[in-house]
Amino acid sequence: MIKITLPDGAVREYEKGTTALDIAKSISEGLARKVLAASVNGQVWDATRPINEDATFKLLTWNDTDGKNTFWHSSAHLMAEAVESMYPGVKFWVGPPVENGFYYDMDLGDKKMSEEDLVVLEKKMNELAKKNSQYVRKEISKADAVQYFTEKGDEYKLDLLGNLQDGEITFYTQGEFTDLCRGPHIPNTGLIKAIKLMSIAGAYWKGDEKNKQLTRVYGVTFPSQKELDEHLAMLEEAKKRDHRKLGKELGIYTMDDDVGPGLILWMPNGTVIIEELEKLAKETELAGGYKRVVTPHIAKESMYLTSGHLPYYADSMFPPMEMDGEKYYLKAMNCPHHHKIFDAEPKSYRDMPYRIAEYGTCYRYEQSGELFGLMRVRCLHMNDAHIYCTKEQFAQEFKAVNDMYLKYFKIFGIDKYVMRLSLHDPEKLGQKYVNEPALWLETEDLVRKVLIETGVPFVEVKGEGAFYGPKIDVQIWSAIGREFTLATNQVDFAQSRSFNLSFTNQNNEREIPLIIHRAPLGTHERFIGFLLEHYAVKLPLWLAPVQVKVLPISDKFIDYAKSVSDKLKKADIRAEVDDRNEKIGKKIRDTELMKVPYMLVVGEKEMNENKVAVRRQGKGDLGVKSVDEFLVEAVEEIKERKAE
Amino acid sequence: MIKITLPDGAVREYEKGTTALDIAKSISEGLARKVLAASVNGQVWDATRPINEDATFKLLTWNDTDGKNTFWHSSAHLMAEAVESMYPGVKFWVGPPVENGFYYDMDLGDKKMSEEDLVVLEKKMNELAKKNSQYVRKEISKADAVQYFTEKGDEYKLDLLGNLQDGEITFYTQGEFTDLCRGPHIPNTGLIKAIKLMSIAGAYWKGDEKNKQLTRVYGVTFPSQKELDEHLAMLEEAKKRDHRKLGKELGIYTMDDDVGPGLILWMPNGTVIIEELEKLAKETELAGGYKRVVTPHIAKESMYLTSGHLPYYADSMFPPMEMDGEKYYLKAMNCPHHHKIFDAEPKSYRDMPYRIAEYGTCYRYEQSGELFGLMRVRCLHMNDAHIYCTKEQFAQEFKAVNDMYLKYFKIFGIDKYVMRLSLHDPEKLGQKYVNEPALWLETEDLVRKVLIETGVPFVEVKGEGAFYGPKIDVQIWSAIGREFTLATNQVDFAQSRSFNLSFTNQNNEREIPLIIHRAPLGTHERFIGFLLEHYAVKLPLWLAPVQVKVLPISDKFIDYAKSVSDKLKKADIRAEVDDRNEKIGKKIRDTELMKVPYMLVVGEKEMNENKVAVRRQGKGDLGVKSVDEFLVEAVEEIKERKAE
Repeated sequence: MIKITLPDGAVREYEKGTTALDIAKSISEGLARKVLAASVNGQVWDATRPINEDATFKLLTWNDTDGKNTFWHSSAHLMAEAVESMYPGVKFWVGPPVENGFYYDMDLGDKKMSEEDLVVLEKKMNELAKKNSQYVRKEISKADAVQYFTEKGDEYKLDLLGNLQDGEITFYTQGEFTDLCRGPHIPNTGLIKAIKLMSIAGAYWKGDEKNKQLTRVYGVTFPSQKELDEHLAMLEEAKKRDHRKLGKELGIYTMDDDVGPGLILWMPNGTVIIEELEKLAKETELAGGYKRVVTPHIAKESMYLTSGHLPYYADSMFPPMEMDGEKYYLKAMNCPHHHKIFDAEPKSYRDMPYRIAEYGTCYRYEQSGELFGLMRVRCLHMNDAHIYCTKEQFAQEFKAVNDMYLKYFKIFGIDKYVMRLSLHDPEKLGQKYVNEPALWLETEDLVRKVLIETGVPFVEVKGEGAFYGPKIDVQIWSAIGREFTLATNQVDFAQSRSFNLSFTNQNNEREIPLIIHRAPLGTHERFIGFLLEHYAVKLPLWLAPVQVKVLPISDKFIDYAKSVSDKLKKADIRAEVDDRNEKIGKKIRDTELMKVPYMLVVGEKEMNENKVAVRRQGKGDLGVKSVDEFLVEAVEEIKERKAE
Repeated sequence: MIKITLPDGAVREYEKGTTALDIAKSISEGLARKVLAASVNGQVWDATRPINEDATFKLLTWNDTDGKNTFWHSSAHLMAEAVESMYPGVKFWVGPPVENGFYYDMDLGDKKMSEEDLVVLEKKMNELAKKNSQYVRKEISKADAVQYFTEKGDEYKLDLLGNLQDGEITFYTQGEFTDLCRGPHIPNTGLIKAIKLMSIAGAYWKGDEKNKQLTRVYGVTFPSQKELDEHLAMLEEAKKRDHRKLGKELGIYTMDDDVGPGLILWMPNGTVIIEELEKLAKETELAGGYKRVVTPHIAKESMYLTSGHLPYYADSMFPPMEMDGEKYYLKAMNCPHHHKIFDAEPKSYRDMPYRIAEYGTCYRYEQSGELFGLMRVRCLHMNDAHIYCTKEQFAQEFKAVNDMYLKYFKIFGIDKYVMRLSLHDPEKLGQKYVNEPALWLETEDLVRKVLIETGVPFVEVKGEGAFYGPKIDVQIWSAIGREFTLATNQVDFAQSRSFNLSFTNQNNEREIPLIIHRAPLGTHERFIGFLLEHYAVKLPLWLAPVQVKVLPISDKFIDYAKSVSDKLKKADIRAEVDDRNEKIGKKIRDTELMKVPYMLVVGEKEMNENKVAVRRQGKGDLGVKSVDEFLVEAVEEIKERKAE
C-alpha cells in the first residue's frame, strides 16, 4: 500500500500502482469525469499513470491552470492526428499550450494550408475526438525512438531527440497518431467537446529567420460548447475594447519611432487618468501611514551588485551608460533606492513600521517582438512601496496591504480575482531560496492566515516564491472575463541583509527588518490598459478625461454655456464647451463618440431658467436640472468615485 | 567726430579718441565717479581707452555684472601688487573674477602664506588702493612681452604668451605692478574702498594634479565699506542657512555613493515640499489652460539629431545606452518629447494655443567637481511646459507666462528679481542664430513690450539669445540677498521647423507654430535649495513637511492629543503627536529644532475644554484656542499659502 496525502492534509492508503483516475473514482464518479491530470509530488502526471510510492496529491481539472494546459496540449496532439490523416507525410515540430489554447508547428512539405482548410480540419478533429481514443504513454529507449523517427524520415523529432537522455524518453499515442512527447495528457479525446481553430501563420523553425518556415495553426478547445461560445464572444468584445485602438481614438497615449518601441508618451487624456489614479493611491497610502519619496531613475553598478540584480537580472535591464569610469544603469525596480532612503537616517523601533511609497518609473528590457501596446512596455510607472517592519508587526502590515487590494478591487468593480501564493521549495533552500527555513515557514504561515482570515480566494504554488521570500501574484478578470496578472505583494528577508539594513529594537539591539514589496495598482501602463477594456472606455466619471461637455444649441448660447462650464471648473470638474458652429445633433453624436460621461445641452429655456438639460453617455436624456443641482450630484459622484 | 549711440537710442557726437570717462563726465561728474568700464560695440572696454570710431555704447557701473567683474579683476591685480611687494620673486598664474569676488593663483617659491598672513596682505592692499594708482593699458609686441617675462624668469606668463598672437597682447600696470592681461580694468585703485581676503587654498597648475601646487588666495572687494559689511553679514547668514546642512538635518534629501554623485534621493520631508510645489504648479497651470503629459526619460539618438542636441549639446548629456542596434539617451530636456506629443494628432487653429506641461525629469552631465548640493545636480525635476501658438497669439501667451512668474514671486515673497532678456546678434544670423531676421526683431519687440507693459525690471543683453529665439533668464535674490538664476522663458522659431510641426490655419493652410519654452519654478532641486535659504528653513505653513505637532504634557493626555491630531489630519493638515515619555520643555525644544510651524500643547485644562495651547515656531505662545478655531485658521493659512 502507498500513502496518498490529499490537499486538505488527509492521508489515504491505496494499492501500489493506483492511478489518479482510480483515486478520483474512489471519491466520486462525477469528480472522475472531470479529471484531466494530477499533481503527484509537485509534478503534473497523466491521470492514468500508475503511482508506485507515497505522494502528495492533487487532482487537476479544468479549473486548474495545469489541468487546462494539459487539455490544450492534448488538443494539439488531436489536431496533429487530424492533420496527419489529411496531409500524409506531414512532419511535426512542437505543439505547446499557450495563453488561450494551443498551436502546432508543422512542415507540410510542398502542400499548402489556407484559412478555409481550417474548417475541414476542425471537422476532422471533432470526428476523431468522438472516437474517445485513450492517450497512451509508453517509455521508450533512445535507440528505438531514433529508429522510429529515422524510418519515418522526420528530421524535426530527431533534432528534439538529440537533446534528450536515454531513460527520459516517452511516446504518446492516441488513435492513429504517435508523437515524441514528455506529456502528460488527458485520459482520452472524448473530453474535448468543443473545438475552434483560430488562425494559421508562418513560423520559422526554432524562431530563426534563416531556417525553413513552418506552418503554425492556432486553436482553442473546451470541455463544453457553452464555454467555447463564451470564449469567442469574449474575444469579439475584447477586439472592440482593444486598448491600442481606444488609446489612439481617445488621445490616451502614443508611441513614436524616434523615442523608441515600448516607450509610452502619455497624451493629455491619458495623463488625466494617471493623475486620478495617483491621487487615489496617494490618498489611500497617506491614510495607511505611508510617506512618499522621490528617487532617481539611475544608479551605479555597485548598487545592483549589492541587490543581486546584476548579473542575475541583467537580461531584463537596460544596457549600462559608462561615465566617469563607472557604469550606471536605469533602474528596473525601485527597491534598492528605497533601501538607501531607509538607511539614510538611523532607525529605531519607534520608526517602525517605516512605509515609503513612490510612483517610481522603472525601465525593463523586453524583446521588441514581445512589446504589446500598454501591456508589455519598456518604461513602467509603478505604484510601488516598501514597508520595513519588525517580525511582530508583519502580520498586521501584510493584512493592511491585503485590505488595500480589496479596497481597490471594490472601487474598480473587479469582482473576480485570485491571489496566487508562491511558496519556497524546502529542497532548494540555499540555492534558489534564502536559507532561512524557519523564517520561510513562519512568514508563509502568516501570509496564509491573513489570506484565510480575509476570505480572499487564493491558490498556493510550491517552488515559485521569489528568492527572498513568499510572493503573491494577483490575477484579476476584466468585465468581459479576460485574465490579467496585475500586481505583486512580496515578503523579503534577504535584501535587508544585502543592504545591511537595521533598526535598534527596544532592547537597544540591532535588528534586521522584514520588508514587504507591494504594488496594488501595478503599473499605470498595464492598469490603464486593463481599465480601457474593463470599462469599455466608459470610464467612471472620476476617471474620465473630460467629465462634462456643455453643448449650446446655437451660437446665441455660447456665453451661457461658458458660464456653466466655468462654474463647474471652479468645483474642479473637467468641463468643456463645444462652441463649434454645428447642429446640436452632431455635437451630441461627437461627444458620445468621445465617451464624455455628461452632456449638458443648453438653449433659450435653460439659459432663462439657469438650468441644463442633462444627457448621460449611453443612457440618454436625464431631464432638465438646475446648474447647482447637477453640480452637487456630479461633485458627489466624483468624490465617491462611483462606478456610474 | 565719431557717433556714440547711447542705450536709449540717442546718438551723440564726440571727438575721435574720446574715452568712456570723458563721455560720462559730459553727462555728469557724479556719474563719472561711478564708471568702472564701458561696453563699446558689445565689448567691455577700459573707461580710459580712446574710442576711435562710431560705436554703440553703455557705461558700466557696479550695478552691471560686467562692471562688477572688471572691479574684481582689477582687485586681483591690486592683490598681486601687494603680494609682490611682500614676497619678492613671486610668480603669478591667473587672477579672474568669480561669483563673489576674485582669486589669484601664485607660485611663492619656497615661501609659505597662512590665513594669518592674509590680514597683513589685506592691510597692504588698502595702503596701495589709497595711492589711487591708474591702471595703464599698453599694447606690446609678442617679442617684447616674451623678453620681459624671460628676464623676470616667469615661466607661467611665458606659458600664457605661448597661446597668444602678436598684435593682441597687452600689459597693464598699476603702481609698481605690471601684468600680462587682456583687461579691461577700472580707471584707478582708489575706487576699491573695502577689501576682504576670504581664504587661502592650494590649486594645481592648470587644474592638473600632476602639476605643481600653486597658492590660491580668494578675496572680495567693494566700492564702500557698507557694502562689504552687508556682504559679510549675508555670507554669515547663508552659512547658517546652507541648504546642504539643513537638507540633512531636516530629512529633506540625501545622496548615496551607490546611486551616484549629483543624484538626489528625496526623503519623505523633501517629498512633501515637492508635492506641494507640484500642486501649486498644477493648479496654476490648469487655470492657465495647460494640459498635462507624461513622457519617458529616454529617446533614440535620431530624436536628438533632429533636435540638434546631438552633437552640439552632447557634452552635457549622459552617454548613450546601446540596445537593439540603436543608441538611446537619457533626456536632457523635455522639449523633443513634447513636440512628439504635439505632433501625434493633427492640429488646427482651434487647438491653438496648445499648452502642455510636465514635471519632467531630465539628466544632465556635469563634471563631478562642479556638483554642489541641490544647486548643481545631474538629475533635474523641471517645472516644464511648452506652448505652441500662432504669431497672433504670441504676445498674449508670453504675457500670461510673465504673469505666472509674478504670481509665483508674490507667493514666495521674492521681492527682488530681474529678467535678463537675451537677444540675437544680427551679424551672426545664419551662424549662431536662426536666419529669420524679421521674426527675431518681431518677437524681441513683442517680448520687450510685454516686459515694459508689466513693469517688470529687466536688462537687455545682445548676442546671448538661444539659437532658436530670444530668451529670458530670471534672476532672483533670496531674503538674505544672495542671487540665484532660477528659470528661463524662451521663444523658439527653430524647433517647429526641425520637427516639422504645423497646424492648419483658418485659411486651411499649413502654418508653423511658435513655441514658448518656460519653467517658472525652475527645477525642484534648485528651487528647494533656494527656499531653504530664503525662508531660513522656517517654511510657510503650506510647505512645511510637518505642519502641526501636538504635544501632550504627560502620557495621560496622549489619547486627547491623538484625537486632536486625527481631527487635523482629516482636514488634510500634516499633524503628528509627540508621544514620547519626555518633559514638555524638551518636546517643545525638539519641535522648535525641527522647525514645525505650530505646536499644540495639551494638558488637563485643554482636554476638559476641548482646547489647545498654541505656540508658533519662533514666536512663542499664541494663547489657548478651541480645536475648531485653530483648525479653521490653519486651513485658511494653508489654503491661501500665506507667508506666515
